[in-house]
Amino acid sequence: MSGVRRFAPGAAGELGWTGVERLRYKEEGSAPFRDITRQVLFSQPDQQCELRYFEIAPGGFSTLERHRHTHAVLILRGHGSVRLGDAELPVAEHDLVTVDPLTWHQFRADAGCALGFLCLVSKSRDRPQLPTDEEPAPREIR
Amino acid sequence: MSGVRRFAPGAAGELGWTGVERLRYKEEGSAPFRDITRQVLFSQPDQQCELRYFEIAPGGFSTLERHRHTHAVLILRGHGSVRLGDAELPVAEHDLVTVDPLTWHQFRADAGCALGFLCLVSKSRDRPQLPTDEEPAPREIR
Repeated sequence: MSGVRRFAPGAAGELGWTGVERLRYKEEGSAPFRDITRQVLFSQPDQQCELRYFEIAPGGFSTLERHRHTHAVLILRGHGSVRLGDAELPVAEHDLVTVDPLTWHQFRADAGCALGFLCLVSKSRDRPQLPTDEEPAPREIR
Repeated sequence: MSGVRRFAPGAAGELGWTGVERLRYKEEGSAPFRDITRQVLFSQPDQQCELRYFEIAPGGFSTLERHRHTHAVLILRGHGSVRLGDAELPVAEHDLVTVDPLTWHQFRADAGCALGFLCLVSKSRDRPQLPTDEEPAPREIR
């Protein structure tokens, strides 16, 4: 329905939109990650994409993963870093991050500061792959 | 290509992303609007949606229009108002605005403050309709 939803703190102090369900980041417990909430902002039937909001608590991080679908990310609040392949880059509010197909990536919130970001993906997409002993992620170069 | 683009002022003081083309809002001169820049943030071939950024200069406004496709809007900076059907609602940073099919809508920046917002749409979508004498927009109720 047409309308305006406001951005406000949730039960755990994380920010998000009122009236939009807050989801657990991942159901399965196998992939390492820490302190993340997730909201799907829009789910119009005529749109083939989803805009999601992730918020990583201070010092938290997302799963190191890769997939064939592209990620389009916009940092909405806070600061931290993103690992892209073998690079580690600082990110802050309003930075735009593009993740190409099959590029290893991971987001981290700096200590003392939450990192909130929007992520645009196709509704139909492949599942993320995790590093394995046979196919490890490239060593990070700082 | 994977990477990070920064948010910085453009030639006219408007904000936007470096390395992303700044476009004129509309090519045709028929629809009334004022002081708007536009950027298409992501155009990955595997995504059927576009995330665009519009920035309205202080006191400016977008075209009053409607269309069958839905709009999903997130206010990124500043404050102003949105007309939705016969309502006029204040909007500010981080507010989420949903525009249903065929709902008249128009964004305005407050005097003295630019209004920047993200807008998610399907790549394939119908053209906007403008009010006509035969089918005027509903009278605004403040």
